[in-house]
Amino acid sequence: MNQGSPEAPEPHPDIRALLFDTFGTVVDWREGIAREVAPFFAQYGLRGDTRQFADAWRARYQPSMETIRSGERPFTRLDTLHRENLEFVLARWGADVAAIDPRDLDNINRAWHRLDPWPDSVEGLARLRERFIVAPLSNGNIALLTNMAKRAGLPWDCILGAEVVQAYKPQCEAYLKTADVLGLLPNQCMMVAAHNDDLAAARKAGLRTAFIPRPTERGSHQKTDLAAESDWDVVASDFIGLADALVPRNA
Amino acid sequence: MNQGSPEAPEPHPDIRALLFDTFGTVVDWREGIAREVAPFFAQYGLRGDTRQFADAWRARYQPSMETIRSGERPFTRLDTLHRENLEFVLARWGADVAAIDPRDLDNINRAWHRLDPWPDSVEGLARLRERFIVAPLSNGNIALLTNMAKRAGLPWDCILGAEVVQAYKPQCEAYLKTADVLGLLPNQCMMVAAHNDDLAAARKAGLRTAFIPRPTERGSHQKTDLAAESDWDVVASDFIGLADALVPRNA
Repeated sequence: MNQGSPEAPEPHPDIRALLFDTFGTVVDWREGIAREVAPFFAQYGLRGDTRQFADAWRARYQPSMETIRSGERPFTRLDTLHRENLEFVLARWGADVAAIDPRDLDNINRAWHRLDPWPDSVEGLARLRERFIVAPLSNGNIALLTNMAKRAGLPWDCILGAEVVQAYKPQCEAYLKTADVLGLLPNQCMMVAAHNDDLAAARKAGLRTAFIPRPTERGSHQKTDLAAESDWDVVASDFIGLADALVPRNA
Repeated sequence: MNQGSPEAPEPHPDIRALLFDTFGTVVDWREGIAREVAPFFAQYGLRGDTRQFADAWRARYQPSMETIRSGERPFTRLDTLHRENLEFVLARWGADVAAIDPRDLDNINRAWHRLDPWPDSVEGLARLRERFIVAPLSNGNIALLTNMAKRAGLPWDCILGAEVVQAYKPQCEAYLKTADVLGLLPNQCMMVAAHNDDLAAARKAGLRTAFIPRPTERGSHQKTDLAAESDWDVVASDFIGLADALVPRNA
């Protein structure tokens, strides 16, 4: 374990775990989904912009979890919600969903397991891991996050998130139970996200917060989450900047 | 991803995940607990063989989970059971438990987070990870297994086990739900253990099985689990042998 240099005081010595939002913060879902959908569109004669299709699929993300947050529906993993949302969006797109081979639907649904990290994600995580437990605190399910990490080389210490604690962010329990699972107090955990609302919920639960902008997550005309909207504990340009802030290199 | 050499057929091509028993199979709990308990014994004036103390503490392991398996008690993580068992065994050992600083009890309880791997564990897991998802399927809780892996350098892809599926081995659900969490069928998973009874339960649930003897897990006079007691799918001398069997080196 890197104990830090004796001359430099350790920043945030009480933080033990960094918990990462994943879709948008660690990986680029929009370009990844667009890339994976393109050959599927060609195979089934579907037309239109695959990035807009990615946006439409992603737009169903929050509403589909809302029925679970409200208690209307028992906890259901994200792979299942993604699959339902895929069929819904394909039908809206004019596809004859019943005529599509279910194996092709399964394969496209698993595009969420094959998203690429932002260029700084792997290097930044590797440096942060020297001092902290690093784990996703994502609404993605365990298989999705495990397969994503294995393909992309994300060096997580463990896979946490909605399926482990049976609660979807931004519900308070999602953050509190994750800290508890690690045997830590909420303020020994820092939530890292490109989304101000995720950090606001994490702070309300007692976690520390770090904001990383991902200004092209929603494409070149992104309007939201371009900057920190509160006095988060750390604001950094990317994961390398976060590592510089939290794990200073020894001289 | 290592796709294997074209000349050698891949053994067990349908297996996607290797799931490992941890206490005894990956790490040496008896020597680790004895080592950690020694300074605690000295501090509080306790006498006796620390390996026998480790055995006595471990002897409470199965009975304490049994109340949860039977439904008599709601799911409770192993750190809590270990702590209850520690106080019980200390009292039997003649200690005045109420006079012990609770922080020292917590620290000794977390000795289970600081167990050393067997000499072949890290290298074997690293090789197996090239081809398979590798994860613990342990009765240990997430914090215990995460801290253990970080200290020992165990290269898990994710941390699975009792706390994720809320069931203790050898209950069938522990194996079935773990496969389901990975999005796999039971026969796409192989249980790796040094204990014949764990493998028998895994096989009953439909998993493949690999036996690795750990003939000194219970000390030099160990009588049980010295050899495979059934026709397990793979029997290997250690994790290097398992890697040789499942991930042949390319010529």
